Amino acid sequence: MHKLTLVLLACILCTSVRAAEPNTNIIFLIGDGMGVAYTGAYRLYQDDLTTPELDATIFDEMLVGMASTYPDDHNQVTDSAAAATALATGVKTYNGAIGVNAQRSPVVSVLDKAKELGYLTGIAVTCQVNHATPAAFVAHADSRQSYEKIADQYMDLKIHGKPKVDVIFGGGQEYFVRKDRNLAKEFEALGYSYNADIKDLSKIKKLPALGLFSKGGLTPALESEHPLRLVEMTEKSLELLSAKSAQKKPFLLMLEASQIDWCGHANDIACAMGEMRDMAETMKLIKRFIDKNPNTIFVATADHSTGGLSVGAKGQYQWNAAVVRNIKATAPTIARQLLASKSNWKSVWQSLTQIKLADDEQKTLDAFITQADENNSELVVGQLTAQVLNYIDKYTSTGWTTKGHTGEYVQVFSYGKGKNNFEGAIDNTDIAKKLFNYLK
Amino acid sequence: MHKLTLVLLACILCTSVRAAEPNTNIIFLIGDGMGVAYTGAYRLYQDDLTTPELDATIFDEMLVGMASTYPDDHNQVTDSAAAATALATGVKTYNGAIGVNAQRSPVVSVLDKAKELGYLTGIAVTCQVNHATPAAFVAHADSRQSYEKIADQYMDLKIHGKPKVDVIFGGGQEYFVRKDRNLAKEFEALGYSYNADIKDLSKIKKLPALGLFSKGGLTPALESEHPLRLVEMTEKSLELLSAKSAQKKPFLLMLEASQIDWCGHANDIACAMGEMRDMAETMKLIKRFIDKNPNTIFVATADHSTGGLSVGAKGQYQWNAAVVRNIKATAPTIARQLLASKSNWKSVWQSLTQIKLADDEQKTLDAFITQADENNSELVVGQLTAQVLNYIDKYTSTGWTTKGHTGEYVQVFSYGKGKNNFEGAIDNTDIAKKLFNYLK
Repeated sequence: MHKLTLVLLACILCTSVRAAEPNTNIIFLIGDGMGVAYTGAYRLYQDDLTTPELDATIFDEMLVGMASTYPDDHNQVTDSAAAATALATGVKTYNGAIGVNAQRSPVVSVLDKAKELGYLTGIAVTCQVNHATPAAFVAHADSRQSYEKIADQYMDLKIHGKPKVDVIFGGGQEYFVRKDRNLAKEFEALGYSYNADIKDLSKIKKLPALGLFSKGGLTPALESEHPLRLVEMTEKSLELLSAKSAQKKPFLLMLEASQIDWCGHANDIACAMGEMRDMAETMKLIKRFIDKNPNTIFVATADHSTGGLSVGAKGQYQWNAAVVRNIKATAPTIARQLLASKSNWKSVWQSLTQIKLADDEQKTLDAFITQADENNSELVVGQLTAQVLNYIDKYTSTGWTTKGHTGEYVQVFSYGKGKNNFEGAIDNTDIAKKLFNYLK
Repeated sequence: MHKLTLVLLACILCTSVRAAEPNTNIIFLIGDGMGVAYTGAYRLYQDDLTTPELDATIFDEMLVGMASTYPDDHNQVTDSAAAATALATGVKTYNGAIGVNAQRSPVVSVLDKAKELGYLTGIAVTCQVNHATPAAFVAHADSRQSYEKIADQYMDLKIHGKPKVDVIFGGGQEYFVRKDRNLAKEFEALGYSYNADIKDLSKIKKLPALGLFSKGGLTPALESEHPLRLVEMTEKSLELLSAKSAQKKPFLLMLEASQIDWCGHANDIACAMGEMRDMAETMKLIKRFIDKNPNTIFVATADHSTGGLSVGAKGQYQWNAAVVRNIKATAPTIARQLLASKSNWKSVWQSLTQIKLADDEQKTLDAFITQADENNSELVVGQLTAQVLNYIDKYTSTGWTTKGHTGEYVQVFSYGKGKNNFEGAIDNTDIAKKLFNYLK
């Protein structure tokens, strides 16, 4: 046979094989701010103390490599916008940029590309859905601060004549239901269900669906009646997206445990571990889904590390997970409740933290709480929050170096199909590039 | 053929195949204290600023996974002794233990096992050779502080009637050449060459060899005439060990960039980056060796992280590698030279750091240096060292949470044969267990 004929035949065969294979689903989970110390601390936090071994986590099971996160603007430490743009589009950009490159031109995200190819798409996050990380998958803005403009783009930037995202779960009512524009109503007019209470998740039976379950970000896991709210939103998203994909439409689902970062900015370890539990349980759910739906790529990573967290601090060769586990609220909530309880603050402290303070620490708190200036309440709450965090860090041996981000490599996790794509040391932009390879 | 006969034949065949394959060389490199932030910072530190891309490092090329490091004593943060025992023997133990388990019984190291099998063995480190990490491969002691006892064991614990280690390079003259016992002479009596100056490395032509190049640890890389002394010692070790292994004897070589940890304890970022360069260049040398000698397993890791280092700190979204690169000495040396120069301190500061201080900072230093109490010099050096480090951290945006260790997972690196053994999330004990599998 002529050589060219052979090559042509091979091409035809290869095309027909490719066409026969159903397109691959993609699930992309981001733990915002989830540096290496967070997964290490979480392993100690979640350990079953009744067994002698330190139990492994889903992070141990799925670790495949690490990613560099630096932005493209001569800083070495990224913000969530530049990192999300890198992860969503494969393009390095400047801190603050949402879906635009360094020249401020829009760049295509994996979600855009998937939707153009006819995929179903979803976003489920614990922040407002127009916050930096999910926004970079959908919108284009020179500044992450353009919250209303970004919310508008969830409706206005259409592909094939329809909004890009078929299921949108998270917070952000204040940006979508505004005086000047009611985007929720506009989505309903296009056939979306709209729900404003996470309790109603079970009522949602079909796509497309918009669920905005709070004004801004969702309630912190540690204080929520739905501490596993990312698990709940992911489960519903997968149910909706895979019901249709049974009709041969693949899906791309972007997920974010958004508030690991917020707890990191607050240097609040108990808060962070609450969010980590939601992240870990979401990964377990995804594992179960992939075991039943193996034609699914799963990759998880962090956009950067937050807070300069360390497991152990100030010369202590230990980290007291048991103390962290007993803390029942975020530090500002503890501070507010202490102030509200006035001279009865000790029982509130005991029930919310179970930390036994030294005498001088008790005296310090007592003086502060009983003499607090009620006319200056936010300042007072801030000061008391800082003091509460000092004690939590001391009694847990937790360390922090910043209220901002840090520039270390972050971990990359994968499971099932395509896992070998993400092994070793890669750049955050490589993750998007590898996902684009599946979107052809 | 009868089924049993088939199985027997298969076994015989498989044994004969195994016997025909030469035993595998093992190179095990430990970066003491080298947490994730150290390799991330080093990538920025070593970047060639004349090219637009952030250059990848040998760490990027060789990353395969991460390892947990917790000890077996209800603390969560390991010291170097427990971690080294885990890495050398596969057994978790208590902080402080050298080659003994939690019940204080001796445990067998990969070096012991290799020597029993007739391997050549080597140790090259930048600390005293009887310091915790190398010691756990050779000695057994309830306490890492038993420095003289551990040094004695390098001579006294024999295998096949000879000392366990055929090439011993590092520091530690004060422990090997003592009033009560001259171990160097004892080694010479057994046929070892003994050298006390690293300049004489090139004179060493054959095994066995003892080289102790300083009283305690070697001079810090940043201030050494041999800043790549681990590279030099590794090159000579490989030359000696592989010259013999050409005669069919495989080798096991244990290496440590020991002082990354010491710089971490000192919270001295320039010091740490000097040691990281020696570590990275050693890995490049090993890569070249393996490319020529592919029957070699190479694994590198850290025993733990030190200092709670972060790339970026105090709200700054940057890390100023260029400032770090210009620092020419460790902080105590800078402090001593500033004090010695008295009112001329500014030119010393400029030449050793190139950091342009603010006016108030200059005034602070000027007052401290010109009024320093010369009768209290060590205290004064300590105070000035702390102030120097404050400025270095400020102008580089480097963060620290402790003068001790922290409990995060550390990276695992490998290259060439057997690399897939070390992928994903493993425990530090798994590294020894996997190496033991090659020693059968």
